[in-house]
Amino acid sequence: MRFEIKDRDGLARIGVLETRHGKVETPALLPVINPNKMLIEPKEMKRLFNIDILITNSYIIYKNKRLKEIALSEGVHKLLNFDGAVMTDSGTFQSYVYGDIDVDPIEIVKFQRDIGSDIGTILDLFTEPNDSYREVKRKIRETIKRAKVSSRIKGEMLLACPVQGGVYGDLRVACAKKMSEIECEVHPIGGVVPLMENQRYDDLTRVILSSKRYLPPSRVIHLFGAGHPLVFPLAIALGVDLVDSASYAKYARDERLIFPWGTERLEDLEEIPCSCPVCTKTDVKELKEMDKVERERRIALHNLYVCFSEMKRVKLAIREGSLWELVEEKASLNPMLFDALRVLEKEEVKEWLERFESVSKKSALFYVNSHTLHRPIIYRYQKRLFSRYLERKKEIMLVDEVEKPYSRYYGKEWENTKVDIIVKTPFGPVPLPLDEMYPIAQSVFPRNIDEESRLSSERLIREFIERFRLKVVSRKIRGERDLDLDRVRYVIDMQFGKGVSDILLDGKVKIVKSKSTGKIRNVYLDGKHILSMRAQDGLFTLKLDGAKILHAYYAFPRLRVVVREDVSHFIRDGRNVFSKFVVDCDPNLRPFDECLIVSKSDSLLGVGRCLLNREEMLSFDHGIAVKTREGAKDGRNS
Amino acid sequence: MRFEIKDRDGLARIGVLETRHGKVETPALLPVINPNKMLIEPKEMKRLFNIDILITNSYIIYKNKRLKEIALSEGVHKLLNFDGAVMTDSGTFQSYVYGDIDVDPIEIVKFQRDIGSDIGTILDLFTEPNDSYREVKRKIRETIKRAKVSSRIKGEMLLACPVQGGVYGDLRVACAKKMSEIECEVHPIGGVVPLMENQRYDDLTRVILSSKRYLPPSRVIHLFGAGHPLVFPLAIALGVDLVDSASYAKYARDERLIFPWGTERLEDLEEIPCSCPVCTKTDVKELKEMDKVERERRIALHNLYVCFSEMKRVKLAIREGSLWELVEEKASLNPMLFDALRVLEKEEVKEWLERFESVSKKSALFYVNSHTLHRPIIYRYQKRLFSRYLERKKEIMLVDEVEKPYSRYYGKEWENTKVDIIVKTPFGPVPLPLDEMYPIAQSVFPRNIDEESRLSSERLIREFIERFRLKVVSRKIRGERDLDLDRVRYVIDMQFGKGVSDILLDGKVKIVKSKSTGKIRNVYLDGKHILSMRAQDGLFTLKLDGAKILHAYYAFPRLRVVVREDVSHFIRDGRNVFSKFVVDCDPNLRPFDECLIVSKSDSLLGVGRCLLNREEMLSFDHGIAVKTREGAKDGRNS
Repeated sequence: MRFEIKDRDGLARIGVLETRHGKVETPALLPVINPNKMLIEPKEMKRLFNIDILITNSYIIYKNKRLKEIALSEGVHKLLNFDGAVMTDSGTFQSYVYGDIDVDPIEIVKFQRDIGSDIGTILDLFTEPNDSYREVKRKIRETIKRAKVSSRIKGEMLLACPVQGGVYGDLRVACAKKMSEIECEVHPIGGVVPLMENQRYDDLTRVILSSKRYLPPSRVIHLFGAGHPLVFPLAIALGVDLVDSASYAKYARDERLIFPWGTERLEDLEEIPCSCPVCTKTDVKELKEMDKVERERRIALHNLYVCFSEMKRVKLAIREGSLWELVEEKASLNPMLFDALRVLEKEEVKEWLERFESVSKKSALFYVNSHTLHRPIIYRYQKRLFSRYLERKKEIMLVDEVEKPYSRYYGKEWENTKVDIIVKTPFGPVPLPLDEMYPIAQSVFPRNIDEESRLSSERLIREFIERFRLKVVSRKIRGERDLDLDRVRYVIDMQFGKGVSDILLDGKVKIVKSKSTGKIRNVYLDGKHILSMRAQDGLFTLKLDGAKILHAYYAFPRLRVVVREDVSHFIRDGRNVFSKFVVDCDPNLRPFDECLIVSKSDSLLGVGRCLLNREEMLSFDHGIAVKTREGAKDGRNS
Repeated sequence: MRFEIKDRDGLARIGVLETRHGKVETPALLPVINPNKMLIEPKEMKRLFNIDILITNSYIIYKNKRLKEIALSEGVHKLLNFDGAVMTDSGTFQSYVYGDIDVDPIEIVKFQRDIGSDIGTILDLFTEPNDSYREVKRKIRETIKRAKVSSRIKGEMLLACPVQGGVYGDLRVACAKKMSEIECEVHPIGGVVPLMENQRYDDLTRVILSSKRYLPPSRVIHLFGAGHPLVFPLAIALGVDLVDSASYAKYARDERLIFPWGTERLEDLEEIPCSCPVCTKTDVKELKEMDKVERERRIALHNLYVCFSEMKRVKLAIREGSLWELVEEKASLNPMLFDALRVLEKEEVKEWLERFESVSKKSALFYVNSHTLHRPIIYRYQKRLFSRYLERKKEIMLVDEVEKPYSRYYGKEWENTKVDIIVKTPFGPVPLPLDEMYPIAQSVFPRNIDEESRLSSERLIREFIERFRLKVVSRKIRGERDLDLDRVRYVIDMQFGKGVSDILLDGKVKIVKSKSTGKIRNVYLDGKHILSMRAQDGLFTLKLDGAKILHAYYAFPRLRVVVREDVSHFIRDGRNVFSKFVVDCDPNLRPFDECLIVSKSDSLLGVGRCLLNREEMLSFDHGIAVKTREGAKDGRNS
């Protein structure tokens, strides 16, 4: 299987999955096609929505003599008249709805293989929210057994092995771990439909977390039955790549229209607040009065227009780095989604999410609600500040936020005092020289933030003072300092480690600033260009000469991405590092962090920017792991 | 002018304004048409968006010889090739942008009249946010002078007289009061474009509040330049009826696309997250590569599709009674809108908003964010509870929320104890018998609400205990009670006044419950049907026999709507009360409150449900003020 990450925002990723019937861009919404009753033909969906994948049910085909024959003789693609990727489900959901079904679990996998399904699904056992712990355990055992056998006979078909476990976190974890060892490509998260039907989004979140976390990052994650756009952003932010939707048709049958904010019954509408081709061509009165079958079809089309459009919005948010804003925004539409966010506010969850969080993003950070301050990027800032702040001055002055960047207002003061000026912000304490670093300057908060966020900021400031045993003074003590130099120092420590600035700046330092913006551009040490600062996020990119210093200072494997010996010369030539050549990696590196690229013998081969974290680099076989900025051509360090 | 309210949610209203060129449904979005450069022809807008009104600039027509001639000879409708309502602006905005303009302020009003404008605008003086107090005062003085003269010469044209005042609340108030006395129909809120351009939505909110509040409710309010859907809900929730949009074209010129959540630059998009006819027909690549003029046109069309669709959503929200949810939802898209909500959390503002707030709504109340608990309907509940709770028991038990309605869980306990059971809820304290009353049962909150809301609920519970000097006990003291009877008592007091239950239930009470739902349906006193309870909101409708008791108990004008003598017999026959026949009204009546309809001599003519509050009834000349439920046919009470 080829699956690679093209872009990302935290766990969410724009990926490309190659199938025998073309490439599928993820996250993808798979419309569910009922082979018995195609409300909208796949061909029409392809034309209207440009779908590259859909999902249908192999059990329904298997049980229908006519469909079965066509599928076996001409293939499922011909049966559906669709030449894109076809995923098939196995009958598990039917067994959940109708009780026992009449098919052999291995037979149905063979059948999917034989009809040419691109992604087939094992016949797993559906774990229900009310199942006992013992019952769930039994079902998992049987599911794993079937997965193992199915994996051996799948042929060229990609195989989907669902993670089950009901609402028992530890069983989800156990199941995920076992599934990781089985050779397969896709992991649906199973047994979640009843949770979604009852809007138990907090339980859903726990289930996704405990499944996803223990699956290899390179596997494709599918969330069964997540067909309403309200849940797309949350699911995808937690690492889900595929969702399928039967809702478009189910809601249409009940004369309910899907909207980005929820669902409305046709009878309650006097106008349809929508501009899709269906709603612009048909007014609500016509729709209410037309033939029932045609009405159902049009509502289904409207529902698909909305769902696909929402999926595009999610992808836009991933590209912009604003997916958390979108997740929180959706929580404002449904209090149960707000409760789901609370699950993500647990320390342990934040710690895990932080590992996948990019160091900086294209768009500014926007406050949405009281959850905002629990976002992984803010958690990281706070963690790093508390572990990397070098209390050069034991005395500090606390000041209020005025405008951004804060140094525009407090810069002169900083230069004339010996004490550290710390700004009280929603992020918690911000030492003045960090004011241009992402996301401090690149953030928008209300002036009157909610009380929960205000209190948490206050608490952090208290803890900061205690942690570093600082003395808060109210008057500045005269001194003389260079804010530019301090900015370089403070940002280096936040970015590369506590005290690293003393190493990187040990010599004659020269700071070059942009003439037009007045911002720091380059840092030279003893005449060598060691760092550049990006204007948009106030973070450093590492130059080869800077990398050499860090390489000498930090022991293996700190800051390193280790590659196979046989690609060393490519890296030295400045070529990018592909995942499959990565042997090891500093577990502290984060997406978009600066890194040293080294050989197994720790020769410095180059310097670059990670696109993935360690877990991902070691898991993926395809795609770029590190964008190399400079190769160590001369080989002096080897 | 005919302007009447058809439906409402608080200050927001679905209205119908009659013009010489047809009816205009409000709230309406008026696309701005530049007569010199029609990016999209009005005729096409009519076809695509079914617009019934647009706005153009009379000053531009006046200054262009050719346009002026056509307009004067054939009329502005012919000039624009549009047969719906045309509103014209006067050149004020041009004077703000380009400095002094060359036209006489009365001449331009005459011109608008002569070219057949349906709504013409006086040439007011644009007050800027940075104008001094003195300067603003001068501008208002001159504006008022012009308004007075313009009003005399307007002819059949409806006249728009803007309220100016910069950011000085007291001057806005003064200007609004003076404008109220001038004979005119529409009041634009002027000088707000610079506030919107700088996203100063909190200032914008203050400006709208201080203008709208002192204008007669029957006047049409226009917000100049509010063309982005982000501000529609807030503006309309504060009583704005018309907004105009040049943004669709302005943004298109800059290659920016409007979306329900904000604006995106075309260059940043890899896909367009939209299903409008433009975006489904053209993909982003084509759009980027096509001829610049055609691209601008298409983006403008897309922008209009989004804006009109959003306006429909606002109207849907008004009809459902969920406009505050929408206002708060939009605040999650922009921190400056969150700050704007803070303005509405002031006691004095809430008190004013409460006067226009309906007693119950079609849809349940949904929690959105920390502002939710400041909504007028919740403010009302708290106010009424604190003033109308009859502390029959000085001892109470405080219990936690479990499920809704609370009595399903605590009902049995209530019947077996002497102390009042009070549920701790986000609304504050809720005595158990009020648990089915709107919006208590009809509300959805997260289980883990934000800290600000939680603290405010706790504070209310403390204040409640102090206010009524209650003693909180932890064990129930055995007693025997009837929850149904208590429900009737508590709801009567909340709805009609403290202690009124003692009057209405003074005799032999019989409560009839629904066999299917088990809910209270009818209440009889001494064999007479005095009250019915609505299942959906748990509130009483008043029957004529109940009305008679209240009429005898409460002195004039409590609970009364007073009508002209000459329509008395219509009301007795059960006909609705039209605004123009209302002479006076109890200022405590709220939209959808039950009321007694009486003559000036206080004869009881009937009982009904108000659609308007006192201010509105006395201000409007058209539309229904009270839906009469029963007329006092027999005349026994007269």
